[in-house]
Amino acid sequence: MPELFREIGHCVTAPQGFRAGAVACGIKSDALSRDLAILASDVPCVAAGTFTTSTTRAAPVIVCQERLQQGRAQAVIVNSGNANCATGEQGLRDAYHMAELLAASLGIDERLVLCSSTGIIGRKLPMEKIEAGVQQIKLSREGGNIFAEGIMTTDTRPKRLALEFEIEGRIVRLGGVTKGAGMIYPNMATMLCYLTTDAAIEHGWLLSELRAAVSDSFNMMAMDGDMSTNDTCVLFANGLAGNTPLNARHPDAGTFRAALRHLTQYLAREMARDGEGATKLMTVHVRGGRDTDDARKAARAITLSPLWQCALAGGDPNWGRIVAALGACGCALQQDSYDIFIGDVQLVSGGVAAQYDQEAARAAMAGHEVAIGIDLHLGNGEATAWGCDLTHGYIDENTLYTR
Amino acid sequence: MPELFREIGHCVTAPQGFRAGAVACGIKSDALSRDLAILASDVPCVAAGTFTTSTTRAAPVIVCQERLQQGRAQAVIVNSGNANCATGEQGLRDAYHMAELLAASLGIDERLVLCSSTGIIGRKLPMEKIEAGVQQIKLSREGGNIFAEGIMTTDTRPKRLALEFEIEGRIVRLGGVTKGAGMIYPNMATMLCYLTTDAAIEHGWLLSELRAAVSDSFNMMAMDGDMSTNDTCVLFANGLAGNTPLNARHPDAGTFRAALRHLTQYLAREMARDGEGATKLMTVHVRGGRDTDDARKAARAITLSPLWQCALAGGDPNWGRIVAALGACGCALQQDSYDIFIGDVQLVSGGVAAQYDQEAARAAMAGHEVAIGIDLHLGNGEATAWGCDLTHGYIDENTLYTR
Repeated sequence: MPELFREIGHCVTAPQGFRAGAVACGIKSDALSRDLAILASDVPCVAAGTFTTSTTRAAPVIVCQERLQQGRAQAVIVNSGNANCATGEQGLRDAYHMAELLAASLGIDERLVLCSSTGIIGRKLPMEKIEAGVQQIKLSREGGNIFAEGIMTTDTRPKRLALEFEIEGRIVRLGGVTKGAGMIYPNMATMLCYLTTDAAIEHGWLLSELRAAVSDSFNMMAMDGDMSTNDTCVLFANGLAGNTPLNARHPDAGTFRAALRHLTQYLAREMARDGEGATKLMTVHVRGGRDTDDARKAARAITLSPLWQCALAGGDPNWGRIVAALGACGCALQQDSYDIFIGDVQLVSGGVAAQYDQEAARAAMAGHEVAIGIDLHLGNGEATAWGCDLTHGYIDENTLYTR
Repeated sequence: MPELFREIGHCVTAPQGFRAGAVACGIKSDALSRDLAILASDVPCVAAGTFTTSTTRAAPVIVCQERLQQGRAQAVIVNSGNANCATGEQGLRDAYHMAELLAASLGIDERLVLCSSTGIIGRKLPMEKIEAGVQQIKLSREGGNIFAEGIMTTDTRPKRLALEFEIEGRIVRLGGVTKGAGMIYPNMATMLCYLTTDAAIEHGWLLSELRAAVSDSFNMMAMDGDMSTNDTCVLFANGLAGNTPLNARHPDAGTFRAALRHLTQYLAREMARDGEGATKLMTVHVRGGRDTDDARKAARAITLSPLWQCALAGGDPNWGRIVAALGACGCALQQDSYDIFIGDVQLVSGGVAAQYDQEAARAAMAGHEVAIGIDLHLGNGEATAWGCDLTHGYIDENTLYTR
């Protein structure tokens, strides 16, 4: 089957009518790091978002949730280095003010402007720096890559991708960019993610497709079990491709769905690969679960086990830790009927050690990408989760973060 | 108020009629480490246990759960170095056989003998070594300390304590010993724990008191979120003190309850302090929770946050990570009304940064014991949890465990 879409580089501004930019305005301690970024569409977009479920969510999350009620947005302003969380009423005023600054600069309705923050929790936003920064940012069609840098915190590299496909015979593009490295827990992961498309899409369908895609991508990625206060994923669809708005009955709905799935899973994988201190990406595929929920539970539990993450770092096929994680996760399981694979090597058969070559098992764990397969032999539930290893680098990154 | 009990050393065999011993029989790779241990009462005991809730629980857990149905037991045989988990039917036969060997050696009914295993998952027990080992173990009244060593895995030191108190004017003793360092999650923690007393106790009350004590001690201790397959906590009461059996209506019930609470919380704290790679013990006290469950949830969430554990290791009062852990844990919380303290320093007041001295905050995190206080200002729910920091030592311990 031919692919429904193709990768066309890495720019969130690849779709028509999107511009972006970023500057270093002095929020991060490193004065040279970009820490204020803007992404804007030339015209208002249909837009939807998914957010952290934390009860201590940050002020900008509250602003986004409120404004996306209307199903429309046109631009977002993002700072890194400061989460604007646990900042009370002042924090909320600052978040609205950030959006207001961008609205004034673009000359658009401030209710169409979203804002995000990421970084240290509990400190007031330096609003004068943001005010000055907004004036300095130059938006451009190529600015997506600078934007990707501007939203990073402990990421070692930007994560971004753009796809191209056809809707009603017209060329349509879909771009995406994320940040996220620590405080990674799949509900959602600690992350900011902005997705752009020039496709025209009906709001209800956009929201349900976004939720479904997030649920199979960012919500299936774990690093350390710490859910963030600032998780945000927004999809902007500006409609400039001129297609009949996509909805569930549109004949090309499946193409958009496949592209969105590909993009979000790519970004999720790249985030896991770039987890703080990570040297290995793990992909856990569970099949035979009693149902999909159970398979998801099992897959995520394995990515979340610090003991297994350590074994992964050491290339040690200590599958007992997978057994422990499975046993603790609450999924339906029969002790005498589950199988465990690492790469192509079957380590466990029917709940006990299989006959396998120890060196082959070590070899399957030696690379930068390790695939773990589980068959629960109970039903048709299937799921994939992504994670990474746990190393000294994670600890070094996090022992003195606020200094 | 005078204490109801006093500490009288550290021996699980301090109560009348208990003997113990251990040998190195070659299960662990280090031939000099004791790895087979026995604890026995001279007479049958009323006994009860609590166990892991894992669906991949180990064979010896199944044996203990089955035998404790009768509410009686007299001895336990424990090996370290091999968990006898994910070992199928053979593993179950081996567990029964371990108990049978001890029963034969003591000349008692095998249905009164329990067994436990701890160590690497997925390997067959070396039964010939255990058979030989059982013959070599000499039981003695002072053997509790050797027993404590025999059940250790990655523990750096034994954890044990004995208490003395009066029931009906008679001297009664209560002893306890635990192992547990990694794979620590409060449901229960990864641990083996044996408690002994010469008090006479009715079985129903013994079980309910044990459950209540475990729930406020071992189930409130976390290290890495990995629940073990082998968690076991058994209380043996041999009745040799000759008191009227304790039950809820006994006038001295409160004395026993206080002693059991003291002992189990002491052991939980010592396990947290000796967590793999740990350099600091953290005690998290939550008050003002909507209810007790909520307070417990919040306290445990903080001990379980790897990011906060890293900050603790670095002595960095990065309280935003406490905010994130609180927000993610699902406890009721109002964003503008919670307080956070470290030691005596209030860092957060009403959900935002309090005025505090940064140096004082760092000083409060500098010692080997760090106290975190949370007030949720919502109700009367209160709970305490224990945990430790996350360091390179944890990772070093766990990257090459099976080699």
